[in-house]
Amino acid sequence: MHAHRQLAAVALLAGLLAVPAFAANSQTATPTRAELLARSGAGEWRTPDPHNLLVMQLPTGRVLIELAPDFTPLHAANIRTMARQHYYDGLAIVRVQDNFVTQWGDPAADDDDPASKPRSLGKAQATLPPEYTRPIDPKLEWTPLPDGDVYAPEVGFSEGFPAARDPASGEQWLTHCYGMVGVGRDIGPETGSGSELYVVIGQSPRRLDRNLAIAGRVLQGMPLLSALPRGAGPMGFYDKPAQRTPIESVRLASELPPAQRPAVQVLRTDSATFAALLDAQRHRHDAFYKVSSGKVGLCSVDIPVREAKTAQ
Amino acid sequence: MHAHRQLAAVALLAGLLAVPAFAANSQTATPTRAELLARSGAGEWRTPDPHNLLVMQLPTGRVLIELAPDFTPLHAANIRTMARQHYYDGLAIVRVQDNFVTQWGDPAADDDDPASKPRSLGKAQATLPPEYTRPIDPKLEWTPLPDGDVYAPEVGFSEGFPAARDPASGEQWLTHCYGMVGVGRDIGPETGSGSELYVVIGQSPRRLDRNLAIAGRVLQGMPLLSALPRGAGPMGFYDKPAQRTPIESVRLASELPPAQRPAVQVLRTDSATFAALLDAQRHRHDAFYKVSSGKVGLCSVDIPVREAKTAQ
Repeated sequence: MHAHRQLAAVALLAGLLAVPAFAANSQTATPTRAELLARSGAGEWRTPDPHNLLVMQLPTGRVLIELAPDFTPLHAANIRTMARQHYYDGLAIVRVQDNFVTQWGDPAADDDDPASKPRSLGKAQATLPPEYTRPIDPKLEWTPLPDGDVYAPEVGFSEGFPAARDPASGEQWLTHCYGMVGVGRDIGPETGSGSELYVVIGQSPRRLDRNLAIAGRVLQGMPLLSALPRGAGPMGFYDKPAQRTPIESVRLASELPPAQRPAVQVLRTDSATFAALLDAQRHRHDAFYKVSSGKVGLCSVDIPVREAKTAQ
Repeated sequence: MHAHRQLAAVALLAGLLAVPAFAANSQTATPTRAELLARSGAGEWRTPDPHNLLVMQLPTGRVLIELAPDFTPLHAANIRTMARQHYYDGLAIVRVQDNFVTQWGDPAADDDDPASKPRSLGKAQATLPPEYTRPIDPKLEWTPLPDGDVYAPEVGFSEGFPAARDPASGEQWLTHCYGMVGVGRDIGPETGSGSELYVVIGQSPRRLDRNLAIAGRVLQGMPLLSALPRGAGPMGFYDKPAQRTPIESVRLASELPPAQRPAVQVLRTDSATFAALLDAQRHRHDAFYKVSSGKVGLCSVDIPVREAKTAQ
């Protein structure tokens, strides 16, 4: 009984993630994510342009964010300008709202104290045009996800990011999935700059799509942003300054010495292995799963990231 | 400029949650959640049966879980038996996997050490029939959500929980939305008992629907489960015992002295106010939102819970 309990416990762990290691029919079981990735070809992976890769250093570790200049070019340029000026260094994570977002920026800008001095944006723009959507462009990757979506007429992947589009309006846009990084703004649409950014840490708040600019996606380090204590103030803002997590630095990978550049690769969303991963998620057949979902939701797709063997 | 920055910062905070306090057209703006709840009638709220309400005490605070005996009656009964025996007292949160689940149970059951002695289940059953779905029953509440769904033919709310159904098969089931509590199990379908439970802490893993029994929903205390450090072991299990969060106790509210019973109410999912909340989420018109989504996804709905004025 003890031995059985142990086996049961181990298998249970595997079971919740549907790792078919213990499956009786493992010969015919759906391949796992690890198995599919192990079979992938080198050409199916892309190395993010270091000019689009932000390295945010927290006391707890490193967060990598890939910018999305095909969708938000003005914001990417402004964020690059701020990073080059070391604008973000010494700022902080000021807000963590459960099942919604973690947000960082200048605490002095969120402060009611008239003595607070928000940091200068220097050569960066204080406000930018919205960039909530962009025209559909056949030159951009469009890998459709044919499974349907509640919020958009069409969804899929574009240039490695989860995205949606509406052929009727001719627009496409990035979607507020887990790990996507958006640009905080004021009431008016032309009031964001990238000086305050947020990342989605819960169920995807798709109602924000087309209402906020999406600057990019966290490639590594999500647990450093998602597991922070929730703020007790309104909307998850920390009500005590000591609760804020300081940002040690934010650098563009292209500004770092080559030896210090993060060496990561992202699976191409137009690759055969990515398609196989989606299919394995839709049609899972193994001893654990009684029924397969037959479908995969856009924000349930975790685009694989791996350490590269050598720095760029 | 400083004053402007301050206003901008304050408005930005409001803006991300679309609180229209600063909206120029606030006369005609969509009412906020708080406004709609303030107008609700007393009869639109229900008090969870204390026989279905679990009170889990952690060192960091209290988590309330409402059981769902209309969907998983055998599991509810078994969990009640374990709670009455104080089975869970002194167990621990053993796993936190980012963007997936937080899981608790008997650490000794997850241990490879043959000297580990899993706790006795006493009068509780060690395994139960699956209870992944149940027959559609017109006597149960069914409040349809007509917005569509990627995973199920029909979705909506049943007895206060997010749910799905398939008229073709005659089945209905609870869905793996944020905050829903599921029953960990072994590979075989009749291997769960409720001794190991998990809660969804990220994007809803709807592929698990109809593959695992859902025991209920966290009504209060999600941040105590979602903000925990992620485990560094496989699948988010803690690789060091010291990282586990101990469970001080789990009690049925009905077993507590009346003065100690939590006094909470849940908005009825078949109420007019709940319908108005969904509609406000679909069709948001205020100065912040450029476009309204027109739709609301099942797992994007946060069913309101409030403190009651007096204990039950």
